Amino acid sequence: MPVIPVIGLLIGAFGLLYALYLARWVLRQDPGTDKMRFISNAIATGARAYLFRQYKTLSILLVILAIAIFFAVDMTRRLPGLTALGFVVGALGSMLAGYLGMYVTTRSASRVAQAAASGGMGKALQVSWRAGAVMGLSLASVALLLISGFYLVFSWIAPEEWATPLVALGFGASLVTLFMRVGGGIYTKAADLGADLVGKIEAGIPEDDPRNPGVIADNVGDNVGDVAGMAADVYESYIVTVTAAIFLAYILGLSTAFIEGIILIASLALLATFVGVNLLRTKNVKNPMSSISFAIYSTIAISVALFFAGSFALGLSTTESLAMAATASLGAVVAPLVVKITDYYTSYNYSPVRQIAEQAKISPATVIITGYGVGLISAVPVLFVIIAVLGVSYAIGFFAFQVASFGSYGQYLAGIFGTALASVGLLAIAGIIITADSYGPVSDNANGVVEMAGLPEQVREVTDVLDSIGNTTKATTKGYAIASAALAALVLFIALMFEIMKSMARVLQQPLTSLLADSISKISIINPNVLIGAFIGVMIVYFFTSRTLGAVGRTAMEIVEEIRRQFRERPGILEWKEQPDYARVVDIATRRALGEFLLPGLVVIVVPLVTGFVMGWQALAGLIMGALVSGVPRALLMANAGGAWDNAKKYVELQGLKKTEQHKAAVVGDTVGDPFKDTSGPSLNPLIKVLNTLSVVFAFAIVLANVHMHIVLTGLFPF
Amino acid sequence: MPVIPVIGLLIGAFGLLYALYLARWVLRQDPGTDKMRFISNAIATGARAYLFRQYKTLSILLVILAIAIFFAVDMTRRLPGLTALGFVVGALGSMLAGYLGMYVTTRSASRVAQAAASGGMGKALQVSWRAGAVMGLSLASVALLLISGFYLVFSWIAPEEWATPLVALGFGASLVTLFMRVGGGIYTKAADLGADLVGKIEAGIPEDDPRNPGVIADNVGDNVGDVAGMAADVYESYIVTVTAAIFLAYILGLSTAFIEGIILIASLALLATFVGVNLLRTKNVKNPMSSISFAIYSTIAISVALFFAGSFALGLSTTESLAMAATASLGAVVAPLVVKITDYYTSYNYSPVRQIAEQAKISPATVIITGYGVGLISAVPVLFVIIAVLGVSYAIGFFAFQVASFGSYGQYLAGIFGTALASVGLLAIAGIIITADSYGPVSDNANGVVEMAGLPEQVREVTDVLDSIGNTTKATTKGYAIASAALAALVLFIALMFEIMKSMARVLQQPLTSLLADSISKISIINPNVLIGAFIGVMIVYFFTSRTLGAVGRTAMEIVEEIRRQFRERPGILEWKEQPDYARVVDIATRRALGEFLLPGLVVIVVPLVTGFVMGWQALAGLIMGALVSGVPRALLMANAGGAWDNAKKYVELQGLKKTEQHKAAVVGDTVGDPFKDTSGPSLNPLIKVLNTLSVVFAFAIVLANVHMHIVLTGLFPF
Repeated sequence: MPVIPVIGLLIGAFGLLYALYLARWVLRQDPGTDKMRFISNAIATGARAYLFRQYKTLSILLVILAIAIFFAVDMTRRLPGLTALGFVVGALGSMLAGYLGMYVTTRSASRVAQAAASGGMGKALQVSWRAGAVMGLSLASVALLLISGFYLVFSWIAPEEWATPLVALGFGASLVTLFMRVGGGIYTKAADLGADLVGKIEAGIPEDDPRNPGVIADNVGDNVGDVAGMAADVYESYIVTVTAAIFLAYILGLSTAFIEGIILIASLALLATFVGVNLLRTKNVKNPMSSISFAIYSTIAISVALFFAGSFALGLSTTESLAMAATASLGAVVAPLVVKITDYYTSYNYSPVRQIAEQAKISPATVIITGYGVGLISAVPVLFVIIAVLGVSYAIGFFAFQVASFGSYGQYLAGIFGTALASVGLLAIAGIIITADSYGPVSDNANGVVEMAGLPEQVREVTDVLDSIGNTTKATTKGYAIASAALAALVLFIALMFEIMKSMARVLQQPLTSLLADSISKISIINPNVLIGAFIGVMIVYFFTSRTLGAVGRTAMEIVEEIRRQFRERPGILEWKEQPDYARVVDIATRRALGEFLLPGLVVIVVPLVTGFVMGWQALAGLIMGALVSGVPRALLMANAGGAWDNAKKYVELQGLKKTEQHKAAVVGDTVGDPFKDTSGPSLNPLIKVLNTLSVVFAFAIVLANVHMHIVLTGLFPF
Repeated sequence: MPVIPVIGLLIGAFGLLYALYLARWVLRQDPGTDKMRFISNAIATGARAYLFRQYKTLSILLVILAIAIFFAVDMTRRLPGLTALGFVVGALGSMLAGYLGMYVTTRSASRVAQAAASGGMGKALQVSWRAGAVMGLSLASVALLLISGFYLVFSWIAPEEWATPLVALGFGASLVTLFMRVGGGIYTKAADLGADLVGKIEAGIPEDDPRNPGVIADNVGDNVGDVAGMAADVYESYIVTVTAAIFLAYILGLSTAFIEGIILIASLALLATFVGVNLLRTKNVKNPMSSISFAIYSTIAISVALFFAGSFALGLSTTESLAMAATASLGAVVAPLVVKITDYYTSYNYSPVRQIAEQAKISPATVIITGYGVGLISAVPVLFVIIAVLGVSYAIGFFAFQVASFGSYGQYLAGIFGTALASVGLLAIAGIIITADSYGPVSDNANGVVEMAGLPEQVREVTDVLDSIGNTTKATTKGYAIASAALAALVLFIALMFEIMKSMARVLQQPLTSLLADSISKISIINPNVLIGAFIGVMIVYFFTSRTLGAVGRTAMEIVEEIRRQFRERPGILEWKEQPDYARVVDIATRRALGEFLLPGLVVIVVPLVTGFVMGWQALAGLIMGALVSGVPRALLMANAGGAWDNAKKYVELQGLKKTEQHKAAVVGDTVGDPFKDTSGPSLNPLIKVLNTLSVVFAFAIVLANVHMHIVLTGLFPF
């Protein structure tokens, strides 16, 4: 019985228990008055209803795909069913993660509100942080449990072919996350937009006012979009990054010590997170943000120390141990750097956001132009960090590790393994990052409860502070998620290329070494198949972004109509005499969001498969590269421009300029930024990974088809 | 003496004479009243002043670069000085093209206005069309003259090394164009924004009102941005596309017949253009657009016929002749397709623009979101056309042409030569496209003259119709220019790769064939140098776009301050009692625009050189690819979103909804779209080509440096 995967299982299990303990603690807090409980319940009911309908819609697609995987992929394997099983379990995991996130947040909202009312800032911070920790810890723990468990079982029952089913876990996870991000993102922003447009602008009632028929849908949206979507996103990133590294190690034929080293890094970082979440000071807190930063930095410091200590337990040479610890630490250490960069471009403490606020004095148009410019430029330093991590980790791996096979490309692959470890190091501390992040939506929801339940002003002040910090952690987490997705996707992409070459060697019955050099020259950037593929990849990203942006507008339109109708037909609502029909708005948002999420999602599955099967694996390689090169900067642009616009509006409000022309102009920026940062932007992350994991799962089938069409060596356009 | 280049010279010379004849005709038209002449002169003076200052600023940079080219590139050649000479002449040509465009347009404006007043639609259409033809014909003719002339001279005095100096012509042209696009784009949009913000919104006076101190700067801006910039752009595209094809043929060692075939295609299309410009019906015109379309389609039909007839004069085999004609025709024929696609997404006759106008009922934010979505999706079909042309022309070339050297890659390069011919076919009809395009700014200027000179309403109606059609041709030309730039850049990029391999063979003194396969595998998309380079390319595009967008806002702010100051300190202006100080605003716009255009321009030169010299040519290859894959779709997005917003505003106005909230929201979209479509978007075109031509010029020097650093075979990160 291998020791380290078992340790992974144990730490994962402990993390889950610890999360349950924290959850019980949170649920034992006072849920507040009847009214608060009522509101909280309405939101929870709507969110659950949406999620279940989304899962039902999705499950048809998942069953079809599982059958396709079973017949196209599993039938060629000695032990059929494992890949389909991995896919299904990965997908169920994403659903569970989303549900869990939603469950915790909706239950905690009224309790945080009550804590703010009874215990002030310190108490409210403690309750919301622990609620966040429930999510952070349980996601990381479930992911680690699944990976360790599947690795143990698969490598035991199918020692020759356990790796692809492990990536299928990632495929299932990223696919469901993609749909959750898209559907939830459309729902949340359409509901937000619809409720605001009629409520704030036409009827002149404040945000979160219970008279607004869209108010519950708006709050449900926060939970199905920001919370469930984000929870699934992190779970998916974790699974994909770790399985990508393991898959690469498998392809390279590295010794078990290296594979177990990856699991060890993940386990040790989770261990450090247990300590980190308890280091939050909640007594006499002046600036909650510095408390949170302290907890994060401590977790990273402890992780790095554990990486260096633990790597020597693997029985590798000193150089190898040091290199493993160094590359993983590199990943962990750059996380705060990415966070800082994002913070600079999206927080109102620095000049970029203040410039946007300044432009609001002129017109909404200059707010848009300047904010878009900020989004563009913000991508540059993050991309620089990504290529720096790639370069340094590659160099360390190149000189420290040995890869026996793959001839002259052995050292190259050793370098890429260094990058894989860096990406694992970056993702391994996800537990604490998510704790800080999911604390945001909890505070946001609490804020809504405070408003709707009509609690006193000083309570609102406490939850307002928590909410605004939550906005910062939410924005910076996106930068972190995108950077880690870029590295993970790069690693997975290169693993895919060598998996394809191995498959070719197997199908053509030629030695791998004789195919290697030629195959690598076939994915040269001058190959027309690759070039055409690259443009197809860009087209997917553009199509997808356009569809998701448009869906928000279309859905919001329907919600606007419905809210207007209610105000028109039942004038008593605005005079507090009638209860608005919240459920109808929730229902419309649910129906439309689900109607809109299928087409872009299907394109992401169908186009790469058609490209791979018809044009050949070289075009598919180009497609993935094109999507990566255009998708990562676009995700950064959209997330950061959105964050910057949001905070520029807040900055204008802080100066007491509400209801001025300047504020109006800033609100336009914020509204444009909403679908940028919460619908289209975050969907690009799972999209890039779906393209990769999908391709890995179908790699062998594609090679087989290419051989049958006689294009496996040339591509459709002979090269 | 080779016959065909001489024919090229003769047709080019004839075209120039014909353009002069048309210019004389236009200048002999009645320039209107004293007031009209006065306004026209003020605009011309401002535009000339700006252009000369821009040229002065640029010339310092050009001298430095010419010296750098002389020492870094020319010294290693047998006949030094040719590359630097090509560079300087190409650059001067861009300046001349810009000046010419500006000269014709500013002189014609008052004459078109007068024609509209005296002769109505038919006469006004005729004058503005001929003014456009002066530009279209002279640009294409000068470009053809330069290419034919330089080819004749260079291949005669330096038969071994004439090709790089020819590409240097393209480098000079695209570099100057880049600066003109950026500087002019900042000027025009900042002046427009500044004049509108204070004039229309604050002071409540109409557009083009002579009381607005920014009104002359605004009209100057149209000339230095849209006219001079666009003229330089087309001249540059023509030069780069044709020289790229010739350069590729040279690299491949194709027979002279093929090289001359390229010049023949360009010459024949110009010949067809002479006929086409005369096919415009101006009598009893109901819909001027259909007249214009007829002229364009006729030119294409005649070109295609001439291609098929002419290709048999080259002394090639029947297959080769047919393939040359077919690929060139493919290029010419897809031009209207790209135009149609762009028209669909940017004209108010179709649903995308109408949807934006519809969203204006809700809020400016939904206008922005929907328009941005339209821009994104509009890139998809254009990209599809680009890859279709690439695929089909590659397949034709692959089967029809023979390339003797380059071993197993010979047929591949034959395929790429097919694509090169398609790109030449696409660009060869530029003369007629530009005639239709530059007719836009002429009408726009005429419109301004009509307004400022206070001519009667029915005159305004005529110039309004012409102006709105001008907007359509302007938008569609951008799509055409981007598609042709993408193909030209692809061809040049592949030629560059093989130029580098040839240089390596020469420096390392190894036979090319032994280096070939290995070198091609070195630019595989899995090479970390290539990947890092690709992200650097994206970073350049993002940085560049952000800077140019921001520059518009910064410059506009200063102009706003100045106009406000004039209104404040001299209240007589608004009461028609005092003349505003137009010159000061022109001066501020000039100074700021020039101050802003250096940094982004330098980045485009310095970053690729540093990447190539320090990280190796593999990283440079990745950089160009990354910039191409992210720049082309971004250029389409920005141009088309801008065009769609512009016309959505016009559509709202057409419905008589001026001064409503809906119109206000649509104006916000238009204002955001302005720098999208006229500053940042159009600058990406020359940017992509500067990266390519710059790299070709410095290719040998980079290889030498890489050899010295021992990274020529591996790149900085060993692969």
